[in-house]
Amino acid sequence: MACKKGKNEPDNEPKSRKSDLKSHQSFPDNSRKTPRKKAGRKSGSFSKVCYGCAPKKAESVKTAEIADGTIDPAQWGKVYPVEYDLWKKTGEPTPAGKSRYKRGYDVGEERPDKLDEYPFLALLYNGWAFGSEYKEPRGHLHMIQDQLDVDPGRYKAGGSCLTCKTPYAPLLQKEMGKNYFSMEYKEVLSKIPKEHQTLGVACIDCHNNKDMSLRISRGFTLGKALDKLGVDQSKLTHQDKRTLVCAQCHVTYNIPKDAEMKSTDVVFPWDGSKWGNITIENIIKKVRSNPENGEWTQSVTGFKLGFVRHPEFELFSNNSVHWQAGVACSDCHMPYTKVGSRKVSDHRIMSPLKNDLKACQQCHTESPEWLRSQIFAIQDRSMSQFIRSGYSTATVAKLFEMANKAQAAGKQIDKELYAQAKNHYEEAFYRVAFIGAENSTGFHNPSEAMRILSDAGNHAGKAEALLRQALTKVGVTVPIKIDLELTKYTNNRGTKKLMFKPKHEIKDPYAEK
Amino acid sequence: MACKKGKNEPDNEPKSRKSDLKSHQSFPDNSRKTPRKKAGRKSGSFSKVCYGCAPKKAESVKTAEIADGTIDPAQWGKVYPVEYDLWKKTGEPTPAGKSRYKRGYDVGEERPDKLDEYPFLALLYNGWAFGSEYKEPRGHLHMIQDQLDVDPGRYKAGGSCLTCKTPYAPLLQKEMGKNYFSMEYKEVLSKIPKEHQTLGVACIDCHNNKDMSLRISRGFTLGKALDKLGVDQSKLTHQDKRTLVCAQCHVTYNIPKDAEMKSTDVVFPWDGSKWGNITIENIIKKVRSNPENGEWTQSVTGFKLGFVRHPEFELFSNNSVHWQAGVACSDCHMPYTKVGSRKVSDHRIMSPLKNDLKACQQCHTESPEWLRSQIFAIQDRSMSQFIRSGYSTATVAKLFEMANKAQAAGKQIDKELYAQAKNHYEEAFYRVAFIGAENSTGFHNPSEAMRILSDAGNHAGKAEALLRQALTKVGVTVPIKIDLELTKYTNNRGTKKLMFKPKHEIKDPYAEK
Repeated sequence: MACKKGKNEPDNEPKSRKSDLKSHQSFPDNSRKTPRKKAGRKSGSFSKVCYGCAPKKAESVKTAEIADGTIDPAQWGKVYPVEYDLWKKTGEPTPAGKSRYKRGYDVGEERPDKLDEYPFLALLYNGWAFGSEYKEPRGHLHMIQDQLDVDPGRYKAGGSCLTCKTPYAPLLQKEMGKNYFSMEYKEVLSKIPKEHQTLGVACIDCHNNKDMSLRISRGFTLGKALDKLGVDQSKLTHQDKRTLVCAQCHVTYNIPKDAEMKSTDVVFPWDGSKWGNITIENIIKKVRSNPENGEWTQSVTGFKLGFVRHPEFELFSNNSVHWQAGVACSDCHMPYTKVGSRKVSDHRIMSPLKNDLKACQQCHTESPEWLRSQIFAIQDRSMSQFIRSGYSTATVAKLFEMANKAQAAGKQIDKELYAQAKNHYEEAFYRVAFIGAENSTGFHNPSEAMRILSDAGNHAGKAEALLRQALTKVGVTVPIKIDLELTKYTNNRGTKKLMFKPKHEIKDPYAEK
Repeated sequence: MACKKGKNEPDNEPKSRKSDLKSHQSFPDNSRKTPRKKAGRKSGSFSKVCYGCAPKKAESVKTAEIADGTIDPAQWGKVYPVEYDLWKKTGEPTPAGKSRYKRGYDVGEERPDKLDEYPFLALLYNGWAFGSEYKEPRGHLHMIQDQLDVDPGRYKAGGSCLTCKTPYAPLLQKEMGKNYFSMEYKEVLSKIPKEHQTLGVACIDCHNNKDMSLRISRGFTLGKALDKLGVDQSKLTHQDKRTLVCAQCHVTYNIPKDAEMKSTDVVFPWDGSKWGNITIENIIKKVRSNPENGEWTQSVTGFKLGFVRHPEFELFSNNSVHWQAGVACSDCHMPYTKVGSRKVSDHRIMSPLKNDLKACQQCHTESPEWLRSQIFAIQDRSMSQFIRSGYSTATVAKLFEMANKAQAAGKQIDKELYAQAKNHYEEAFYRVAFIGAENSTGFHNPSEAMRILSDAGNHAGKAEALLRQALTKVGVTVPIKIDLELTKYTNNRGTKKLMFKPKHEIKDPYAEK
């Protein structure tokens, strides 16, 4: 991962970033090896060195002031037109055929639904809107429009759902207090100035208007969560923030409910974890520890469950090799790019796969084809285990359905077997949901992703074993192969009555030929 | 993985290697990026480029001829004294406290037995000598002595067991034909000149006496196996051979048996696989396809099974990142080292972990501490899943024991459930054996190792499920937690009546604290 000079030297970055970059070491060409000898992100320490991608101090092109409280990105765009134009491009489809497993918004392609890609998810998520329509949003620009277009059940949780979607969220939450979370989604949305009611994440969500330094705007979610990790936010470096502004949203969270199932908060389940070591075990423990986190009822089993959302930060930062090398989200997803005579960080945030591995080549000198093949080697293995553990978990759900039916018909299912099976089932379910929602198909942390999936399979296997025993004990004949009745879940989904699209299904790359 | 010049330039390598290096590209300092742009080991192609570690042509220090047929390493040592002295050091213990999971022969430490380290293996391997004593050999020098010291059941397969242990094996096999494999071990051993009866792998096993070029001496095992892969041995490059001389022995193999359970051959189960893609699926398929491969009977289940031995080459070469980067076994395990004024490849073959990551630093510029922490991050995850899938598989073995007892007592166990459970059990068993025998704790190919372990857990879970159902169906009460009765297998092992040494047990690094 030696640094290729040139690509990562923004020579026209705003002067205002200077102060922010003070904590950053910049390496003259001949000193590369020396600082890398001292390499490594120390867990618990926030004064670390970025090896590959530290931008040099650069001259400003600032042309005007941005008044305090300015949310309209067009106003920011007058001062930073290149970044603004790139940000607007997050509304455009990405090049097709570049990524093997992420095809959420590709040029000329129909946007796939995860429930068509992974039919077992339609079974597992049946019971709420994630089981009706589970399309990826198209990018930062269209986030609210995408939310308005998706099955309306997806914003049933109320104002909470706007937390990452609008730059007005911090203001709204501050003004409305608890009501912000519980009030009906469209009612909260209506409080946003009309012209910005479909404006997605914008400049102010990550930047300070005075000097363009990075800022955590979501103190009420990420801020509180960092406190749980024991992180002193006053000591965060610029490079820390190049990850943490993303971690305001690219994380999992719970929406706890009150007795009337009204949302009361948006909470990151990081209790018991540490900086650089937010574990799946602790996340699940937290989700399961409080009945308030039961956000929905799974149809097939009747269980009240929580959920896991896009835990990119958690997976990446849990002792992955890139994290330990001091790489930030922005290094890979916002690599420096040349626009005219200027070098800027690419605000058209994208998978490096779709950008011909340019981000990787800042540090890795191999060819794009070679790098791509390594990513695919990792992703194929993760995908195989995701699909396998997903089907195993779905099988267990159907066995619970049988057990519940038997019980309803008066059979006495062994309580201990049932309880232990349920425990293992939920442990499997949240792991499958974790990887299913995480957007890197394992790449952000290959061996940790595989560990999570492996344990998902382990728990699902144990749950199946105990349930087969419990069912057999009361005389229910359990077939060797359980019919998942997938069409019940993949067809006629939600208010749009969506039908299964087999062409979008992603098959196990290790399936027997 | 940029190449650090200096460490990998042998300036005193024998001139005779020149011809062998012709197929090798050597890169002047300023051309490093260009060839690496074309990087990548093409599967199926044997003319590849080694990025990190291509040795430059060097001048000879040859001082005398080695006569054809010379096996005595001391004679070779007169011409290559530095390599000879390093080779002799393979008989010395390695530095302690450097490796987390491989402590086979460390200075000042009692050599652990895998059956103490992983008690579930004592259960799974009960029924033959691998379940009695499963110590690592101390290194190339002492290989035969170690074999003579271990439980004698370990060489019950006869002359076959000498195939990798003595440089006389090719001669013996050629002279004796089929008898070589089947004849009693000590009888074959006695045919070796007395002074070499405890001589381990030596110079002639890998080198041509004329010009020191690398040679495949085990045509009767590896040679045949390469034919199965469709590899044209005349086109192998020097870099290919820097892996393949190791792959003569660091591979898995079957010892097929005749009707009297006499060994008939030593065979690598590579049928159906390709160069760069020898899969666990194909290995298991081959082992299970022929009853001749049933080498032993597992006590707990009564099943006749094959085995998997140290598949380092198979795991490493199956699309691992280091393999794809063109790295050979020798690059990491025999890095160039300075002895006096000479640079030689280190014939004291060792884990890079025990050698303070010097081998890694030929390509990776990070500090040894940083590199070590990345290795441990990978190995901890593999170890956790190895232990978990191992215990799951052992649990299934005990359920088969219960099923067999029930059957013996006249209960009619469902044939289809039993047969399918057996299928899943064997699939799990061979995967656990594969990783248990592979000597890198997953590092040689992190995501593939995790995929194999994950599938081991998947199969074990399914087998447990079907067996619990089958047992319950005939009225056998199956406890939720199965008592593995481990002391039955870990104590009084083999002819030495070895007892369990709890201090050597390796615990799941992800166990709940």
